[in-house]
Amino acid sequence: MAQKGDLLSFRPDIKVLDATIRDGGLVNDFYFTDEFIRNLYLANVKAGVDYMEFGYRADKEMFDANKFGKWKFAEDDTIREIVGDNNTDLKISIMADVGRCNYKQDIHDRADSPVDLVRVATYVNTMPAALDMIEDAHKKGYETTCNIMAISNAKESDINTALEMLGNSPVDGIYIVDSFGSLFPEQIRKISEQYMEIADKYGKYIGMHAHNNQQLAFANTIESCAQGVSYLDATMGGMGRGAGNCQMELLLGFLKNPQYNLFPIIKFIEENIEPLKAAGVEWGFAIPYLLTGHLNQHPRTAIAAMKAGRKDYTEFYREIIDRDD
Amino acid sequence: MAQKGDLLSFRPDIKVLDATIRDGGLVNDFYFTDEFIRNLYLANVKAGVDYMEFGYRADKEMFDANKFGKWKFAEDDTIREIVGDNNTDLKISIMADVGRCNYKQDIHDRADSPVDLVRVATYVNTMPAALDMIEDAHKKGYETTCNIMAISNAKESDINTALEMLGNSPVDGIYIVDSFGSLFPEQIRKISEQYMEIADKYGKYIGMHAHNNQQLAFANTIESCAQGVSYLDATMGGMGRGAGNCQMELLLGFLKNPQYNLFPIIKFIEENIEPLKAAGVEWGFAIPYLLTGHLNQHPRTAIAAMKAGRKDYTEFYREIIDRDD
Repeated sequence: MAQKGDLLSFRPDIKVLDATIRDGGLVNDFYFTDEFIRNLYLANVKAGVDYMEFGYRADKEMFDANKFGKWKFAEDDTIREIVGDNNTDLKISIMADVGRCNYKQDIHDRADSPVDLVRVATYVNTMPAALDMIEDAHKKGYETTCNIMAISNAKESDINTALEMLGNSPVDGIYIVDSFGSLFPEQIRKISEQYMEIADKYGKYIGMHAHNNQQLAFANTIESCAQGVSYLDATMGGMGRGAGNCQMELLLGFLKNPQYNLFPIIKFIEENIEPLKAAGVEWGFAIPYLLTGHLNQHPRTAIAAMKAGRKDYTEFYREIIDRDD
Repeated sequence: MAQKGDLLSFRPDIKVLDATIRDGGLVNDFYFTDEFIRNLYLANVKAGVDYMEFGYRADKEMFDANKFGKWKFAEDDTIREIVGDNNTDLKISIMADVGRCNYKQDIHDRADSPVDLVRVATYVNTMPAALDMIEDAHKKGYETTCNIMAISNAKESDINTALEMLGNSPVDGIYIVDSFGSLFPEQIRKISEQYMEIADKYGKYIGMHAHNNQQLAFANTIESCAQGVSYLDATMGGMGRGAGNCQMELLLGFLKNPQYNLFPIIKFIEENIEPLKAAGVEWGFAIPYLLTGHLNQHPRTAIAAMKAGRKDYTEFYREIIDRDD
């Protein structure tokens, strides 16, 4: 597929989505201060970021609200406390997980909500439930995306079936998600091509959500972008589960649309991300994440190793390579 | 240009060069213990790495031997103390900088030296001196490469002239060097194409030496590889000047040649690189390096900022963006 765009012009179809609270919340159980969230919101507005994701809308009957910060539930009123009527160009998204969100009850009509976009996260084997959630959110007036996770372990034929199902649904966009950070740019090119075919056929857009296990989150994001993918996820300082995500400061340094400004992002990192790290909140590239990414495994073993402060990389490698599954 | 190779097979023309001592030496003024160097040598042999660079052969009349570790001068006898007669498949390289190496005197006949490969580092405007060094080393019996530095600030036409000069020289290989870590994969594709044309025309090979300012060292290395580039530089833990280099542990996780083994690399990192970091030797991706890379500047201001422990990223950004050159 021919490259879309070049390094001197910009493509107006590209949108940047800040997923710091949502993916970063997986690192600190969503315990952010209101000040952090407010500063993040203001930084995104100043930086010209297109969307900001305020968290998951998790089911409070499934998850104990005393064990998580409020952004795991990202209720309309909680968001309103930060954004008021959100009289800005920044759109607001939440993520709703298949099986973990009581969407019929907890996602209200868009007219009554500060939320613009509902992103439905699913595995390839729970597509019917995802489609039901997408239809529900679409009927309530929301822009919707479907984020198919863990595709590095799914067959192309299954992914294609899922994409066809989505093509025939009211979903607006479909996300490529490299959950394990195991994909290389040349795989991303092929996957982007597969997704873009569906996008062109059904009039959808395609998004990219990357993980940094092999230090390829940014590279894979801009690689998908060169293939026509237009919704790009990033987080401040790369904050996100395990090795983290595509860094906003790298992505805005790359995009040429004059709408975007790098400076407020650097300022936010200096004033809000560095103190978080100094306080001991940990994420980002490390050898255990490299190893799970390399082996195309979920990073949960690496997250446990990092939490335990393990530096015995060879022993960890032996453990994860010696699984009998 | 069509992609060379795929993700299931391997290309036997690919060679991996460990540049840990040489580029990493820029971080600690080449003060490595003999134990570190010996372990590195053994790890490279076990991992199936093709070349190991033992340092610069700097001129002792220009540089005070009391102010640098011995690997800045990487003399034949010094190397022999580690490798003996080097009865392994690992080849040995040194780097010789234009203007900083008394090559006629200090580079001896290959028959009397443990070195196999002399890599000549030059800027595009000192090509005649580089060619003289290449001819000298070639006549003495060495394999030679020319590493043209700082090409992100050179014109394509000047680079092309330099490549033609090298095409007509006895040099064996030519390196793409992203000195400032400022190049994106789509630029690397174009540059690789330009270099590969010369390679095909004159029967040379092309190499890649990347820096990690924008977390693209590994991505750019494998991107160049997909375009036919075959000599790939990497360092243990990415140790190298400023943001560091392409990480050996990422590169060997990517390459499919069964000659390569990741385990000895992970072991070396656990036992030798982590202690170095714990002792305060610093390198690797950080916001100041991102900013100099983004602005296509030499990282010296960022290195100074990091050494001073500065975390006032916005003020640093203001300083480097406000230069009047």
